[in-house]
Amino acid sequence: MTSRTAPVILTGDRPTGPMHLGHFVGSLRNRVAYQNEFRQYIMIADAQALTDNMDDTGKVSRHVIEVALDYLAVGIDPKKSTIFIQSQVPELAELAFYYLNLVSVARLERNPTVKEEIRQRGFERDIPAGFLTYPASQAADITAFKASLVPVGEDQIPMIEQSNEIVRHFNRIAEREVLVEAKALVPPLGRLPGIDGKAKMSKSLKNVIHLNANPDEICAAVKKIYTDPLHLRIEDPGHLEGNVAFIYLDAFDPDPVGLAELKAYYVRGGLADSVVKARLETCLQDVLAPIRSRRQQFEKARGEVLQCLKEGTDQAREIAARTVAEVKSALGLTYF
Amino acid sequence: MTSRTAPVILTGDRPTGPMHLGHFVGSLRNRVAYQNEFRQYIMIADAQALTDNMDDTGKVSRHVIEVALDYLAVGIDPKKSTIFIQSQVPELAELAFYYLNLVSVARLERNPTVKEEIRQRGFERDIPAGFLTYPASQAADITAFKASLVPVGEDQIPMIEQSNEIVRHFNRIAEREVLVEAKALVPPLGRLPGIDGKAKMSKSLKNVIHLNANPDEICAAVKKIYTDPLHLRIEDPGHLEGNVAFIYLDAFDPDPVGLAELKAYYVRGGLADSVVKARLETCLQDVLAPIRSRRQQFEKARGEVLQCLKEGTDQAREIAARTVAEVKSALGLTYF
Repeated sequence: MTSRTAPVILTGDRPTGPMHLGHFVGSLRNRVAYQNEFRQYIMIADAQALTDNMDDTGKVSRHVIEVALDYLAVGIDPKKSTIFIQSQVPELAELAFYYLNLVSVARLERNPTVKEEIRQRGFERDIPAGFLTYPASQAADITAFKASLVPVGEDQIPMIEQSNEIVRHFNRIAEREVLVEAKALVPPLGRLPGIDGKAKMSKSLKNVIHLNANPDEICAAVKKIYTDPLHLRIEDPGHLEGNVAFIYLDAFDPDPVGLAELKAYYVRGGLADSVVKARLETCLQDVLAPIRSRRQQFEKARGEVLQCLKEGTDQAREIAARTVAEVKSALGLTYF
Repeated sequence: MTSRTAPVILTGDRPTGPMHLGHFVGSLRNRVAYQNEFRQYIMIADAQALTDNMDDTGKVSRHVIEVALDYLAVGIDPKKSTIFIQSQVPELAELAFYYLNLVSVARLERNPTVKEEIRQRGFERDIPAGFLTYPASQAADITAFKASLVPVGEDQIPMIEQSNEIVRHFNRIAEREVLVEAKALVPPLGRLPGIDGKAKMSKSLKNVIHLNANPDEICAAVKKIYTDPLHLRIEDPGHLEGNVAFIYLDAFDPDPVGLAELKAYYVRGGLADSVVKARLETCLQDVLAPIRSRRQQFEKARGEVLQCLKEGTDQAREIAARTVAEVKSALGLTYF
């Protein structure tokens, strides 16, 4: 575990399905690095996942342990990172409850991330109140641990801004710096596209490669990968832009010099897609084999995995309870 | 304390100012009776009061003990009723947090009570999210104790309906009767008007008689009381409708037969307002003297009053924690 004075990171995932390469590149891989530099809290956001899954609560609770298995499989180390389950830290709901007083309905409705997500889900006017107000809940998650860094994609930056507004509003009321503002930590590599070339890997689009994919599944996925639709004959010059095989190679190939040569060759013409795909398959098999094998080990030790979640959750509660106490004290809500 | 199987009542007050005769007639007096029949939980709603008092949190926390003193002064008995402080039962915030997923923003905006209160406060589009969503919070307060009765004025009935909708929605998801629907218990006597004849006693209108008013203040208030503006000469026939002196006598005169005779005389003409007011003053002095004197006793024992709030709050937490456990179990949120 890093020192108590290291900057604090808050990150996490909604447990609504198995994790895939998109998660790996966008966040999981970075967390394995962050845990050596920062005090890292990783939240399995079951309560937040319920905000739009009340019709299938089992899906959420079932995936909590699956997400934990993925974390451990990729190398997140519970001795270095605090992994916890959101719903088991009730202090987060309590904080969110007070933060709701610090943000107006109009401001929530203007939040671009919330707007876009409401549009995507087709909620129209039937938005569950818990969904509209989840930025207050995210502010609670971030501030409970005094996180100063939150790894997010570009599209989530407005959530951090909204959290910081709540922080400033609260500190103004408290007349001291009780809460800490956070910075968005946007990962260097953007979002990994789906194997079909769509902007986003998504289970519902069936364009994902799961972290626990077996060798045959990896092979089949690579075969289907979207490359350059204009590259009809081997001797034609190929294009790299939007070419998922090369985007994935950028993310996974351990030999950047070799990859640069391969790209040049592809652009000149004369290089078959099958050669590119063969190289990509090797990379992916190499990346995923140890993850899959570690996952299988952890799957056999579910009791220990739960125990590790329990310990992380206890640690998280302790920190969050301190923040709740400070917040309530600043609001004058201490009587006994 | 009544038996464990007695129907449960949840009631309470927002601690934003000293309590007055309006509270006494509208609720406090009834609670003294209810506590012998029902399992009564009385909540000092400091957290709810914050939803529109974040600019003056001290006002809220200061009045918590004042409200408790008023309770004890009127005869609410902590051995029979459980008096607790809302913010010190974090389980209520946790429940509210889940209930937010069971109510849509549009439904909250349609709630007539919320609409009216938003209008009164002039919030327009700058409604704090915590204010718009407070019906979910009230549903948490009611259901945490499995209350089946909630004493409210006519204008608050939509809040009970909204709470029951949440209950039904939740039970549907849980596929069993985890939560209990509540009935509004509308007190027989309507709201007491202000001494100026306005519909509502309100500190800001300066038309109230406080529970701890001293004899001179009571006398002065009765002198100012609105009667019948058409009753200019003693011999004129008087009107009872809207006549605050008679409305108060209806609420406080212990001699209904004598009061009926007085009314008949007033309507015939020949009875001076001063006679009516003298009778009213005697009634009010008689009602308020023992309350004032008990309050003074309790004021000298603030430590004990706090201890009594602490014990009530501990009891309330225990019950609320059981409900939270049932709710989370029904949502699948149990892992350890």
